[in-house]
Amino acid sequence: MKGRKGWIMDYGYFLENEREFVITRPDTPLPWINYLSNGRYCALISQLGGGYSFFEDPRYRRLTRYRYNSVPADRPGRYIYLRDAESGIYWSPTWQPVGRKPELWRCRHGLGYTGIISLNENILTRLLYLVPLQDNLEIWQLALHNLGRERRRLQLFTYVEFALFNAMEEFISHPNLHYFSTADYCREDRAIYYSFFKPGAVEGLGRVFISAGRDVAGFDCDREAFIGPYRSENNPLSVEEGMSRNSKVIGGNAAGSLQLLLELEPCGEEKVSIICGVTAEPEESAAPLINKYSSAGAVERELARIKGRWQEYLAHFRVETPDSEANEMINIWNQYQCRIAFDWSRYASYFHTGTFRGIGFRDSCQDTLGVLHAAPGEAREKIKLLAANMYPDGHSYHLFFPVVGKGDPTPYSDDHLWLIHAVSSYIKETGDRGILDETVPYIGGGRGSLYEHLVRAVDYTRSNLGPRGLPRMFHADWNDCLDEVDREGRGESVWTAFQLHLVAMEMTEMAALKGNIEESRRFCELAGSIRERVNEAAWDGGWYVRAFNDAGEALGSAKNEEGKIYLNAQSWAVISGVAGEERGRLAMDAVRKHLDTGRGLKLLHPPYRSFPKGVGSLLNYPPGLKENGAIFCHAHTWAIIAEAMLGRGDLAYRYYRQILPPRAARSAGAELYRVEPYVYCQFIFGPDHPRFGRGSHSWLTGTAAWAWRAFVNWILGIRPAWEGLLIDPCLPADWEGYRAERIFRGASYDIEVRKPRGICKGKARIIVDGKEIPSRIILPPPAEGGSYEVTVLLEK
Amino acid sequence: MKGRKGWIMDYGYFLENEREFVITRPDTPLPWINYLSNGRYCALISQLGGGYSFFEDPRYRRLTRYRYNSVPADRPGRYIYLRDAESGIYWSPTWQPVGRKPELWRCRHGLGYTGIISLNENILTRLLYLVPLQDNLEIWQLALHNLGRERRRLQLFTYVEFALFNAMEEFISHPNLHYFSTADYCREDRAIYYSFFKPGAVEGLGRVFISAGRDVAGFDCDREAFIGPYRSENNPLSVEEGMSRNSKVIGGNAAGSLQLLLELEPCGEEKVSIICGVTAEPEESAAPLINKYSSAGAVERELARIKGRWQEYLAHFRVETPDSEANEMINIWNQYQCRIAFDWSRYASYFHTGTFRGIGFRDSCQDTLGVLHAAPGEAREKIKLLAANMYPDGHSYHLFFPVVGKGDPTPYSDDHLWLIHAVSSYIKETGDRGILDETVPYIGGGRGSLYEHLVRAVDYTRSNLGPRGLPRMFHADWNDCLDEVDREGRGESVWTAFQLHLVAMEMTEMAALKGNIEESRRFCELAGSIRERVNEAAWDGGWYVRAFNDAGEALGSAKNEEGKIYLNAQSWAVISGVAGEERGRLAMDAVRKHLDTGRGLKLLHPPYRSFPKGVGSLLNYPPGLKENGAIFCHAHTWAIIAEAMLGRGDLAYRYYRQILPPRAARSAGAELYRVEPYVYCQFIFGPDHPRFGRGSHSWLTGTAAWAWRAFVNWILGIRPAWEGLLIDPCLPADWEGYRAERIFRGASYDIEVRKPRGICKGKARIIVDGKEIPSRIILPPPAEGGSYEVTVLLEK
Repeated sequence: MKGRKGWIMDYGYFLENEREFVITRPDTPLPWINYLSNGRYCALISQLGGGYSFFEDPRYRRLTRYRYNSVPADRPGRYIYLRDAESGIYWSPTWQPVGRKPELWRCRHGLGYTGIISLNENILTRLLYLVPLQDNLEIWQLALHNLGRERRRLQLFTYVEFALFNAMEEFISHPNLHYFSTADYCREDRAIYYSFFKPGAVEGLGRVFISAGRDVAGFDCDREAFIGPYRSENNPLSVEEGMSRNSKVIGGNAAGSLQLLLELEPCGEEKVSIICGVTAEPEESAAPLINKYSSAGAVERELARIKGRWQEYLAHFRVETPDSEANEMINIWNQYQCRIAFDWSRYASYFHTGTFRGIGFRDSCQDTLGVLHAAPGEAREKIKLLAANMYPDGHSYHLFFPVVGKGDPTPYSDDHLWLIHAVSSYIKETGDRGILDETVPYIGGGRGSLYEHLVRAVDYTRSNLGPRGLPRMFHADWNDCLDEVDREGRGESVWTAFQLHLVAMEMTEMAALKGNIEESRRFCELAGSIRERVNEAAWDGGWYVRAFNDAGEALGSAKNEEGKIYLNAQSWAVISGVAGEERGRLAMDAVRKHLDTGRGLKLLHPPYRSFPKGVGSLLNYPPGLKENGAIFCHAHTWAIIAEAMLGRGDLAYRYYRQILPPRAARSAGAELYRVEPYVYCQFIFGPDHPRFGRGSHSWLTGTAAWAWRAFVNWILGIRPAWEGLLIDPCLPADWEGYRAERIFRGASYDIEVRKPRGICKGKARIIVDGKEIPSRIILPPPAEGGSYEVTVLLEK
Repeated sequence: MKGRKGWIMDYGYFLENEREFVITRPDTPLPWINYLSNGRYCALISQLGGGYSFFEDPRYRRLTRYRYNSVPADRPGRYIYLRDAESGIYWSPTWQPVGRKPELWRCRHGLGYTGIISLNENILTRLLYLVPLQDNLEIWQLALHNLGRERRRLQLFTYVEFALFNAMEEFISHPNLHYFSTADYCREDRAIYYSFFKPGAVEGLGRVFISAGRDVAGFDCDREAFIGPYRSENNPLSVEEGMSRNSKVIGGNAAGSLQLLLELEPCGEEKVSIICGVTAEPEESAAPLINKYSSAGAVERELARIKGRWQEYLAHFRVETPDSEANEMINIWNQYQCRIAFDWSRYASYFHTGTFRGIGFRDSCQDTLGVLHAAPGEAREKIKLLAANMYPDGHSYHLFFPVVGKGDPTPYSDDHLWLIHAVSSYIKETGDRGILDETVPYIGGGRGSLYEHLVRAVDYTRSNLGPRGLPRMFHADWNDCLDEVDREGRGESVWTAFQLHLVAMEMTEMAALKGNIEESRRFCELAGSIRERVNEAAWDGGWYVRAFNDAGEALGSAKNEEGKIYLNAQSWAVISGVAGEERGRLAMDAVRKHLDTGRGLKLLHPPYRSFPKGVGSLLNYPPGLKENGAIFCHAHTWAIIAEAMLGRGDLAYRYYRQILPPRAARSAGAELYRVEPYVYCQFIFGPDHPRFGRGSHSWLTGTAAWAWRAFVNWILGIRPAWEGLLIDPCLPADWEGYRAERIFRGASYDIEVRKPRGICKGKARIIVDGKEIPSRIILPPPAEGGSYEVTVLLEK
């Protein structure tokens, strides 16, 4: 393998120069997955080939099947079986599902592809999975190498199980609906075609195909025929007997198994490309796509394109700090995770079943923050899509399904306000104020400018205040599990009050940008009055309380026995600017005292063991789990920002390191941590639980975007502002500085930050292309394509 | 085995005197299941121990887990592992999940219990599963017998996976919700307790327990700890290593594994009873229940009680005809299936996932017809429950969930009208006219007499007629898949017109029973006008058409290319009395000509291959499947009745035999037929499909009640009427007669029917206790407890 090995961990290591994570043992504690996706066609894949594919939407357009909560775990997937035609011995190049121990095994998860190498019976196999950038399909390329001295005759069987498109309906009614399925092998196209609904029954619904781009020795479209009675993917009858049944499906359980015969001379090599995808139309032939990707070198070229895409993507920001783990995450994996979360919200992961959630409004607003620097055009489109899922009264869907145009109208305290964060961040990144004038529809009809949407969002909250003048909680706020605070219309969210303050300040500035000075003043006054009310009502003496429920009881007060202090009420007091410096420090000191576990910050303390009224469903979790006092990584990132804003660089960095995936995995050990060490997870079991340190819900979490922002914007301090790029680091004491490359509004900045006097945060001298400038704001370059050398000296 | 063996079939046989079906090979084509149920606690169980349990409701109160559409099939279940502590060899007494081939294996499905015998490694095991009549639990009793000459040390491990109560939510959100689960072993109660939601979080939600009624050598509550990574129920790590982990669950995947150590002397025997159930309250101890059922002889006594319950149930009707297969079905299995369908509607079977359907209104109305003779009191309660799920306008929920009091309000053409069939049949069975005066609520408030509900049901249909004066189709009628006939409010159902005619006639009589002569006349006039309109609009020349869609096109007309003739439009023309004798015969002749496949009657002919507008979702099925021209058994039964009404005994009997489960299984062969040969299935693949003869959707189908009625009421002709029991046989030519015992309104009738002149149907001489009576109606006895010898001579 090329590339520089990173530090070694249980089960794997980072291969830095290749931008890969190498898994060294197949039996990871949970499936460690990757996303192969061009933004439309998406394949979740584990280190064992397990996982499923969908087109545009995992609920309504699920193409292949995966069983969540399956025993055995991680079934089925994109499987290849190899069988020695002489001995009858068969195995999976991915270890599972056959489970025959390979002599050698490695999985490399790269950006947009996954490779699995194994050695079995003297046959070395390199299996590469990828999704091309342009077409709605996936490729499984298997390279075989006969390392032995004998000529070998091998039978290769593919296997994939086809799904019934609508994953919810499939679950509810598979025994009826599977009779809609048909599948057969088409000799002309050398492909199995699978249709759900008879072709022609539903317009515009394509069919799924799988092909090896060559003639086959046999095939099976019928899952039962391939697997055999009371067998499983471990030991399919067709493979065991070396004989395809040439079965088709006219109503039944459909699968895609093609059998190929391979002959390998001693030291001989061969490559086979399996192409599986979906056509646009029900009668459309897949032959052009099959031919395109089975031609010589096509897969290699596509892999190069995918690598090129990511190289370009990552070039927008690159840093070199003294922390090599942080560098690896920030430069590669954190950006990758941000992009996957941006593409797929909280819809489909190993922990999100792809059936219920759709696009989360608040989730996608925040996910946008993680891609702005590299994909501003797509962020712009997503912002418009989100805005179109708001009601004319200013509140938004909580979740929505763009494919069918439906959503969940339940009002939450915070959802709609997040759009303001997304829009202001977008403008700060791009300078594109024109987005405010884009015309966007409302749910149920009517249109208005994006700016008007934002105004209405604020107005919705402003006109739904509770008895203390703080925003009503409605169903819940960011913490979905505070869902019994406001059952009777009197519950208030202190956290949303902080959010309202922050967005009112942003709106103050955006209104001014629009030249609307009167409205700007109105927002500024709103911010002022909220600030006053919160400080009057919600300061508990040592920290801020979290909410007031219908009965007027404070959550997160020292007076309580359980849930005395909540993390978000402190971090956001600082982030929002509501807390002055004194209260901000007190609040964050209380966080450190009560919530810092050494492995991250608990969401609240102490976790609830009893069942007080007026709190919510978080009570159902055992202490230390999820919203009941786990280390909630998303919320944890805000504390990093708050500490950086307070100028406490060591604390900010300490918190940043605690949940950094490779560090968290090493701290607990991979066996306990369980989830992938290359992406953030949603939460880590807290010390109130016996499995303190276990991670859960990896991949699709707002943690990705906010951990990125916390480090880049607040620790490194490279932060877009209305006027341009701002440099305001808050570094740990023992760093000398760092170097970073940043593409911003079309210009590239080569930034070096140094601490000649050991000062971590403060006023800086900024030297651009050898000339000191008066401000610590770097003005945007007058034209695209500019290139600047910047030196920042923290001096005071 | 005691008992007389019935005819031998592939995979099994009926053991008549024991009322058991014996399965002789474990690898049946699909799981062949049984229901262990006391009407509240219900356990579905296959011949391999696969299946799940629920309490009251399989959607909202699912206790143990089963994976529908699992690979491998039929997982998980109620498993016992036995491991030889010396050799380490382990096996399942149920063959699966370990899958080690037993030396001997038999499964006996009885009424309310299932027994599995197997011989492995010189250990003979008899495993008995049952659900007691009184308590909400199940018992797995394992009797072990050491057939060898060596002393044996065995480890026994139980295994069951606990579910998250709400099966829909579990599917959607298992990765979140499973963290609500807790499970631990309680030494005092010698039981594992599993709670979903922390105890105390939800009032009135009990906890699940499993106990062997004795101390254990180890336990596992954590599924992953028991199974081990990348393993399955085939080869759990704890079993393979012979070592429980003593794991508990504080948020996670919970299971119930208890380990017992058994020592068996040569020829030694031992019995172990596993008790698994649910408490009423979250903190309640299960110790009283565990002690009750682990005391000596308790299981044997309970088995005797269950057998006694069924003996008593079946004593209400018993027949001896020349057809031993029909006798077996009518006397035992058909009545058993009717009762299971009555208890569980279409809610939970191997083909109904227990997540979506709830109680079907029309389904349960019809299911009631199959239990009236044996369980009139429970039928009365069900009728009241159904009536309470009607709207004040007279239409009903299509489906509803009694546990949560919600339903699907979509109006169908027929749902509400079925209640009239149920009520009139109930009164004819019991003579209990008082039911009409029972006060029953409407959905959304208000109450009225049951009679008023029935009047409103008719009025709803009467006031929703289409352009031809026939009832509007609404979403669909009995055929759920005719769901595009009436999208615009002009589609009409000819079939519902027949139904309306029939219920109007019933209402004519019920109104008269109530002394409401004016209303009686009104219903009679309605029937007359419907009869006229149908005969004018829907007679196609050779048969009746099925429906008119929004565009005014007839479905089921000879003019069409596809769907020229529909079965139900002919059988109900006769059943309803709308067709005169001539048209009735013509219509049923057309059925025979176009729809009789030799294995049953197709629902329509020819099946649709194209996609005409204005038909419905049945087009999505391949030709010959389900509503697109399969042999739809429920509809098939109505043709039996129609032929019997027309006096064509040979045809009626021919049709009856075609779908009789053991006959249908033998005709196709069990490999092709696939489903159980001891209960009816919903449909059989038609000749337009390559798998002609395959059955699907066994157990919960209206076929059960209607096949029962068709044979007993119309072929045997023993039929309750308003005034008493009526005897009006329509027998096949080659029968000499039959004998039957019937308990009716508290009196018992010993009936012998003979054909001294070879006449199959006609006027009879009826001799009661040696004296000929003038009428062919047998008047009800003046007092309960009477006993009558009846001889019926068909003479003219």
